[in-house]
Amino acid sequence: MSTDIDARATDTLDGTGLIVWFTGLSGAGKTTISEAVRTELLARHLRVEVLDGDAVRKDLSKDLGFTRAGRDENIRRIGYVAGLLARNGVIVLVSAISPYRAGREEIRQRFGRFVEVFVNAPLDVCVERDPKGLYKKARAGLLMNLTGVDDPYEPPISPEVECCTDRESVEDSVTKVLSAVLPLT
Amino acid sequence: MSTDIDARATDTLDGTGLIVWFTGLSGAGKTTISEAVRTELLARHLRVEVLDGDAVRKDLSKDLGFTRAGRDENIRRIGYVAGLLARNGVIVLVSAISPYRAGREEIRQRFGRFVEVFVNAPLDVCVERDPKGLYKKARAGLLMNLTGVDDPYEPPISPEVECCTDRESVEDSVTKVLSAVLPLT
Repeated sequence: MSTDIDARATDTLDGTGLIVWFTGLSGAGKTTISEAVRTELLARHLRVEVLDGDAVRKDLSKDLGFTRAGRDENIRRIGYVAGLLARNGVIVLVSAISPYRAGREEIRQRFGRFVEVFVNAPLDVCVERDPKGLYKKARAGLLMNLTGVDDPYEPPISPEVECCTDRESVEDSVTKVLSAVLPLT
Repeated sequence: MSTDIDARATDTLDGTGLIVWFTGLSGAGKTTISEAVRTELLARHLRVEVLDGDAVRKDLSKDLGFTRAGRDENIRRIGYVAGLLARNGVIVLVSAISPYRAGREEIRQRFGRFVEVFVNAPLDVCVERDPKGLYKKARAGLLMNLTGVDDPYEPPISPEVECCTDRESVEDSVTKVLSAVLPLT
């Protein structure tokens, strides 16, 4: 009758599922780390799904823009899908800028088994890397509402993991994430 | 990097997952049958998730209306979520009017393991039942674009299962669905 996650969580919850939420600026390294973590988890025969913020936008949120309301709704939808997967035993690696603390906290509160990974690099390092060319576009006036440039980013206050990708290797970051995730599986 | 389902299907596909898609008019019996099927599958210790069209709209498609474009996009989103769950070993029972043949076929083509259940009852029987009061509202001019009334319904041409709910019991319908689903699990 209903897909309300909370009401049914106890029916089918598979204890191994959880949400690992990678938040940070564009270029901070979310995709790189989450993909490497995915490889490690698959090698351990765990069920893993990556939900990438940009990719999911195409599938679930074509209608939404990059205003606060649009971003909040997009994160809410990703959280809904991540929750459905996690309660069925999947380790869900969400990789999304997700700039607002309240949106991330809402998902943590709703689902419980939630590991927040703050992928942290100084803005100037992200601008230097600029893997998607977004900072260049913003500088040229071709892109508005870019997080860290003319849109806010609210860093986590006490994330389970913080990866300082300007100072540590991808391997270091992956090890940190696995240390937080594997005991929960 | 991407959540493209097709590209990754072979990575994590758990052979037991599939999509069971209940289509039919409002009041035909989709929710009743899918809930009863859910109970039977849970009793067999299978992982099951019900995605109800109305409930999912609240979570994923608040923005969408009931035009053809709005309905198509809603069905596409449900299909995307169902596919993510199914490829992780979940039996996903989708209960949605899903009036357009092309939308249902798109999901069948994309995911392969797809059982279409045509929940079939004559319109006058559905109007008589009217569990959500929608037909009454439409008659009073308070609701537009109601499938079967002033919006089209395209019945499946060769569904895996057809439940004629005006002539068979819920138990009969459930037995039919299980006969099609269980051999695939």
